[in-house]
Amino acid sequence: MTVSDNFEIQSFCSIMSMIDKLSEISETKDCLTRRYLTPEHRQANDLVAAWMSDAGMTVREDFVGNIIGRYEGAQCGLPAVIIGSHLDTVVDAGRYDGMLGVATGIECIRSLNARNIRLSCALEVIGFADEEGARFQSTYLGSKALAGTFEASLLGRKDQDGISMSNAMKAFGLNPDRYKEAARIPDDVLAYLEVHIEQGPILEEEGLAAGIVTSIAGATRIRVTVEGNAGHAGTVPMDLRKDALVAAGECIITVEELACSNSPVVATVGEINVRPGAPNVIPGLVHFSVDLRAAEDVKRKELQKEIKRNFDRIAKTRGVGISSEIVHEAESVDCSPDIISRIENSMVAEGHKAFTLFSGAGHDAAAMASLTDVGMIFVRCKGGISHNPAESITAEDAITGAKILLNVLENFDA
Amino acid sequence: MTVSDNFEIQSFCSIMSMIDKLSEISETKDCLTRRYLTPEHRQANDLVAAWMSDAGMTVREDFVGNIIGRYEGAQCGLPAVIIGSHLDTVVDAGRYDGMLGVATGIECIRSLNARNIRLSCALEVIGFADEEGARFQSTYLGSKALAGTFEASLLGRKDQDGISMSNAMKAFGLNPDRYKEAARIPDDVLAYLEVHIEQGPILEEEGLAAGIVTSIAGATRIRVTVEGNAGHAGTVPMDLRKDALVAAGECIITVEELACSNSPVVATVGEINVRPGAPNVIPGLVHFSVDLRAAEDVKRKELQKEIKRNFDRIAKTRGVGISSEIVHEAESVDCSPDIISRIENSMVAEGHKAFTLFSGAGHDAAAMASLTDVGMIFVRCKGGISHNPAESITAEDAITGAKILLNVLENFDA
Repeated sequence: MTVSDNFEIQSFCSIMSMIDKLSEISETKDCLTRRYLTPEHRQANDLVAAWMSDAGMTVREDFVGNIIGRYEGAQCGLPAVIIGSHLDTVVDAGRYDGMLGVATGIECIRSLNARNIRLSCALEVIGFADEEGARFQSTYLGSKALAGTFEASLLGRKDQDGISMSNAMKAFGLNPDRYKEAARIPDDVLAYLEVHIEQGPILEEEGLAAGIVTSIAGATRIRVTVEGNAGHAGTVPMDLRKDALVAAGECIITVEELACSNSPVVATVGEINVRPGAPNVIPGLVHFSVDLRAAEDVKRKELQKEIKRNFDRIAKTRGVGISSEIVHEAESVDCSPDIISRIENSMVAEGHKAFTLFSGAGHDAAAMASLTDVGMIFVRCKGGISHNPAESITAEDAITGAKILLNVLENFDA
Repeated sequence: MTVSDNFEIQSFCSIMSMIDKLSEISETKDCLTRRYLTPEHRQANDLVAAWMSDAGMTVREDFVGNIIGRYEGAQCGLPAVIIGSHLDTVVDAGRYDGMLGVATGIECIRSLNARNIRLSCALEVIGFADEEGARFQSTYLGSKALAGTFEASLLGRKDQDGISMSNAMKAFGLNPDRYKEAARIPDDVLAYLEVHIEQGPILEEEGLAAGIVTSIAGATRIRVTVEGNAGHAGTVPMDLRKDALVAAGECIITVEELACSNSPVVATVGEINVRPGAPNVIPGLVHFSVDLRAAEDVKRKELQKEIKRNFDRIAKTRGVGISSEIVHEAESVDCSPDIISRIENSMVAEGHKAFTLFSGAGHDAAAMASLTDVGMIFVRCKGGISHNPAESITAEDAITGAKILLNVLENFDA
């Protein structure tokens, strides 16, 4: 049995098994939801820490709750190649988004350690604490903290239960005043690599197990507030109403229309809350989110302006107040040509077509790009479905991703 | 000082003071919300029971949680005139909707008791447990239980936290198997009288403190489910989406359009919930409510059918599933001509214009009409605003309402 065969058999069991175990840690019984700084985040970190340690890494949790395993190179203290992805999920999530990258990283280190291989650089595996931002609308929080771009204003932001991030950090055992200490020194980091499910339909259409990411879409996330007048559903005549939800409905339709006419830009209203929110009361206040993504930053910003103009028109026509606040904005990010080329070589060496594609979804790699060179390997997922319990990949494709990553790592000191 | 003057001074203090005290019992700190079978419902019942007892009534809680005070007539066990309204509220409510009727009833009994007046009938004051249905979408629950029209299927209905009404009743100290025992025998009840704020702008426009209700609008409440496909907000192209929220938005706009073109029918979407409900996930499932009201039942039912046809069209066009379930339906109800005439006489006797008007809002009187003759006195409210913290009436108008009711009661045995 060759080393490669052995890796295949072991990783066949353990990557999927790690993901399955992580998927059992959820805030809700009937579906997978694991948000930042929850007791389930703590459980996930503890479990991943045990796996990292078992795979031969020294483990620490940083000042924002990222869990970090380090595998030293030929000497202690060498600059590191960081392998990472996130451990948090959206609400009612799939199990592979994020978890695949962390489990694959751990499995690669386990393989190196089992063969007593030390590279001319250190390797680190990071399970980022918060990428989805489902609790505090704080996208890329974990990787931004590492890259030194964490925004201090986030600490005061509150979740739906009115708990501030600062207080949630304290409850988790973190000191929010020390978030800056999570930032890494650029000289200590050689590169960032991330394996992730594609979350789109392209690799499946091409009949390929894996692909190389060339760039990551830019994104804008907006929180919109519509202010009308609450009132009794039975007594206020239709022509005297200022119904905040009907106005919001018009905004939602408009967002879709504008995105459709500006293809391939995508726009989504994923969250909406109505006050008072009772069947027999005219809605007085509505909050909703707008998420915009585009490969070209210019197109995204044009769409954003056009949406704003249309919201202003709706507000004027309906006599309601509509205000917007940008809660997240990320420019599109190019992956490093050098790393793309390294991944291409490894894919060919492992017998695969070196197929490149664009990422419509955002990833921690986008935040890490401000610290170091980044590269991403996409793994095919069934039907392009993600952010959904039906998210699915095959064990064979997971192994393909792991073997490509391991090949890149083993050749990093070449 | 005459008896009437004394009543005025006393009720000036105590009706508004009772309402103020009840308004302090809320599930939330920043606004008034008191739903069925909550700890706050318990607190409200206990407080009202103490006031009833203090006013000279014997007090009991019935099998669905209504609080009932009885003031015997010249002999014990005579049939009763019931005075009632509700103690529950919508979310973020005003303080007068419901509470005014209960406080006014108690104050009238206090006045009779202070003057040792016993009538040729018994009087009862009821604080109904659930009229708004904010927790279980169970409109008129308290008065329906009394009228013997409580629907057993409600017991299995769950609130937003997944707690069934049956279990909530048990936690409140009630036995859900015995709900039928809340029903009253028609021979034991002479009439039902309710004082309520108008919740509309007509009395204010007419410059009148009070009015007599001729009939109560019919209402249909529908729970709509939209089923689309959840997916990643960044990777699913616009033309491949089946976004449940955009479809719901189109439904909401349509409901408004159809109601506007069928005036004076009114239609409201007051509640909406989105799953998964995250900014970066395309909504896969949406629930929303539709509330329809009309003086003419035929018009309401025509609108209901037209809405259904339009929802079917939207479902077909967008490739989503849209299903509807009627959760509440009430025909319009006429007040008793005999009681209208009694109230007219009392209004004139108290020096007011006997002004009649229609009620766009539903009331417990509508459910009580299947048990006995009903009548309602409306009290003017500021700007017609209700189901809103800005709900407001004057103490003078509250006294006017109480004096008219007291006059009706004192003459009931005439």
